[in-house]
Amino acid sequence: MSAFLTHCQEAIGAQYVISDDKEMQSFLTDQRQRFTGKGLAIVQPATTAEVATIVRLCHQFSVPIVAQGGNTGLVLGSIPDDSGTAIVLSLKRLNQIRAIDTANNTMTVEAGCILSNIQDTASEAGRLFPLSLAAEGSCTIGGNLSTNAGGTAVLRYGNTRELCLGLEVVTPQGEIWSSLRGLRKDNSGYDLRDLFIGAEGTLGIITAAVLKLFPQPKAQLTALAAMRTPQDALRLLSIAQTHAGAALTGFELMSDVCVQLVLQHYPQQKKPFSDADAQHAQYARYAQYVLLELSDAESEQHAITTLENILHTAMEQDIIQDAVVARSIAESNALWTLRESIPLAQAKEGGNIKHDISLPISRIPEFITTTDALLKKYVPNCRMVTFGHLGDGNLHYNVAPPKGISPTNFFAQETTINRIVYDSVHQFGGSISAEHGIGTLKRDTIRQYQSVVEIQLMQVIKHAIDPLNLMNPGKVI
Amino acid sequence: MSAFLTHCQEAIGAQYVISDDKEMQSFLTDQRQRFTGKGLAIVQPATTAEVATIVRLCHQFSVPIVAQGGNTGLVLGSIPDDSGTAIVLSLKRLNQIRAIDTANNTMTVEAGCILSNIQDTASEAGRLFPLSLAAEGSCTIGGNLSTNAGGTAVLRYGNTRELCLGLEVVTPQGEIWSSLRGLRKDNSGYDLRDLFIGAEGTLGIITAAVLKLFPQPKAQLTALAAMRTPQDALRLLSIAQTHAGAALTGFELMSDVCVQLVLQHYPQQKKPFSDADAQHAQYARYAQYVLLELSDAESEQHAITTLENILHTAMEQDIIQDAVVARSIAESNALWTLRESIPLAQAKEGGNIKHDISLPISRIPEFITTTDALLKKYVPNCRMVTFGHLGDGNLHYNVAPPKGISPTNFFAQETTINRIVYDSVHQFGGSISAEHGIGTLKRDTIRQYQSVVEIQLMQVIKHAIDPLNLMNPGKVI
Repeated sequence: MSAFLTHCQEAIGAQYVISDDKEMQSFLTDQRQRFTGKGLAIVQPATTAEVATIVRLCHQFSVPIVAQGGNTGLVLGSIPDDSGTAIVLSLKRLNQIRAIDTANNTMTVEAGCILSNIQDTASEAGRLFPLSLAAEGSCTIGGNLSTNAGGTAVLRYGNTRELCLGLEVVTPQGEIWSSLRGLRKDNSGYDLRDLFIGAEGTLGIITAAVLKLFPQPKAQLTALAAMRTPQDALRLLSIAQTHAGAALTGFELMSDVCVQLVLQHYPQQKKPFSDADAQHAQYARYAQYVLLELSDAESEQHAITTLENILHTAMEQDIIQDAVVARSIAESNALWTLRESIPLAQAKEGGNIKHDISLPISRIPEFITTTDALLKKYVPNCRMVTFGHLGDGNLHYNVAPPKGISPTNFFAQETTINRIVYDSVHQFGGSISAEHGIGTLKRDTIRQYQSVVEIQLMQVIKHAIDPLNLMNPGKVI
Repeated sequence: MSAFLTHCQEAIGAQYVISDDKEMQSFLTDQRQRFTGKGLAIVQPATTAEVATIVRLCHQFSVPIVAQGGNTGLVLGSIPDDSGTAIVLSLKRLNQIRAIDTANNTMTVEAGCILSNIQDTASEAGRLFPLSLAAEGSCTIGGNLSTNAGGTAVLRYGNTRELCLGLEVVTPQGEIWSSLRGLRKDNSGYDLRDLFIGAEGTLGIITAAVLKLFPQPKAQLTALAAMRTPQDALRLLSIAQTHAGAALTGFELMSDVCVQLVLQHYPQQKKPFSDADAQHAQYARYAQYVLLELSDAESEQHAITTLENILHTAMEQDIIQDAVVARSIAESNALWTLRESIPLAQAKEGGNIKHDISLPISRIPEFITTTDALLKKYVPNCRMVTFGHLGDGNLHYNVAPPKGISPTNFFAQETTINRIVYDSVHQFGGSISAEHGIGTLKRDTIRQYQSVVEIQLMQVIKHAIDPLNLMNPGKVI
């Protein structure tokens, strides 16, 4: 055992410094099991002071640090490379909810708190913490902050960045910077908070945060609308925002391909519009679907009326072809399940090439038409599994192989397919990294689309704050 | 004329480089006429490329740059010191609205656009740009961004930071960095945008921005409620947020002292509750008042009903003593005029010592009680002109001299009074700089309340991005 690890053991207890290969395995492998790195040890401090001590030791011994929360990331941002020189610093034992202040509508939480625990605690206090995403049962708020996670409520509440009022961070030198004051207005210098948020652990380690809470809506109801084109979906978005204002909390686009995939792999899933009316006694298929969610401060009936008004207006203008309003929480949940089953159905169907992209909302219809055509020229009959948070301009633009084509042949074309998609995103003024971060997976790609001055600005900041390059090296920058 | 100024003239035209003392005067004096600096010249480029050229010349000749918009700041952030070595780089000629995209709900504007022009252009396109503050008729969006301005709509829409999706910035080396893509989700590296926002021109010069637009509310109505204490005002806030959700767009506290001051100096101002009901046939006085504003997506009638429900609930719980709901835009405006006349009435009354502070909302009542007592012990009978954006935790906590005391004697105590207030703010976990920025006026003071690690982080960032310290030297850091 090296002197460094002995010091770590002395600082936080031997049982919290794991160096056994087998025990380390799950911390070194990403959740999609694409890559396993090598690590010197898994170090699990329980307090901010212990984190600071470990970081100072790393600084002293020049040991790189990969901070890790729930390890649910999709871009290999929270596992080390295969050099075996780095420690994984797991934040999972920092899992205290330090305070909840309902009059200030804030909650102070440690980085290792599981997102769904935070949601539950807020709910028990009669408040809403709106961040919501697929991994919420196992991801940690520290990871959400470090990747500036998005999710399904961004339309109304913003990304994780917008949900945070302050941070506690251990710097690369092992010092503690804190802005855990819960202030809504504070212009007292450079915005360090937003620099650490989204930095994926490359500038310091987030150990705690003050989160914004909101009043709980009285009713949360959804509707499903069917339409011909993404352009019509955008028209519906404009109508919905005009009618509902900030009460519109979800606006999710799904193409027919997505819905078909879910119905094929989950035959128990209720078919949309299967018994909508006499005209559609059979299950009716449409080209595009939108799931609308309304969070109403008033009542369930008020939510239903507002949804009906939106859909009525859109129907009159021939924007939508069909629509159904959920009349209960159960019906709402069934609609959400349809949307949330898409990634699962995709996995069952076999591999596909995923792109987490964002675009100016106004350019999405043209982007889809153009890029679909480019891809189908290159891979005839490839299947476009396009869905996502249309209200935020965020598409999960996924390409599945044509039926009957071997996945191996298809994946051999991944580099070219990515290039086609990303070039198109760039041309339409979009981003190739919307809500999943950069990690190592997108690091080299993203550089091709960034200006020299942008890369230089990031590099000088990184070098200024972490001159020894010990914080999650090889990630982001 | 120096070689530097000759180069500037050649770059942008001789008439846009002013070095005549008399013509420079208004650019060198702050709007409250507290201080006049000295300048080498006022340089007025018209395009981003011209700004970049001037900055490169400054870099080459080591000339400091003070960027200036509408020069409406309150902290001496946009005027140079008295060394006479710096130029004032006025952004006022960069005043084009470059694009408006109603489907993306964004607007691309140049730094020199006047805030009210931006509001008007949004409105003409059927959209809302919600940033609103007293100086809106003359301040520029570049200044709003550089100071992360607050204003009256932060409760719902956030500070200027939250209203910006991207920037164009000229770096201290005279290069142009642009993120003018109008994306709502983009995690492609460090958050440079938020670093430049609020940096008061010390890290680079903002030349353009993409702003978020919102649907226009169908109705915007206000109500005035009277109550015994700030604690009751907080209870009302909680009820209002529960009932109205995001429709609650304003929540302003005013003490009776403030209202008296306005009525004294503006006798034509309609008295609150003067003809409310028989019980208060005479104008009724209360200790505290709250102005509530509702922005309703539905209708005027719906806004009135919601306001009435809020006030009814609060009345039932004995939280408020009296209330009036505006029945028209004119009545709403009259209530807002009362609130907005406070600073004007203060100026008419004579000088006072102003503090732009923020606190965790939950701690405001105790802060006011404690700090009022401390001040009254030091200056018996001093008058507390306390008002502000309670919903954001932002108070304008102003101290006026006791009646009959000479202003000179009172202002001689300014340093001690500031110390008492700021120490108390610090103790209650607040910030001494909420929405007006730091400039030179608060620079030394703020340092006393910041940790060493925070100051060091800011210093290494400043040095990394502006190693020659040419960007607004002596401000912020």
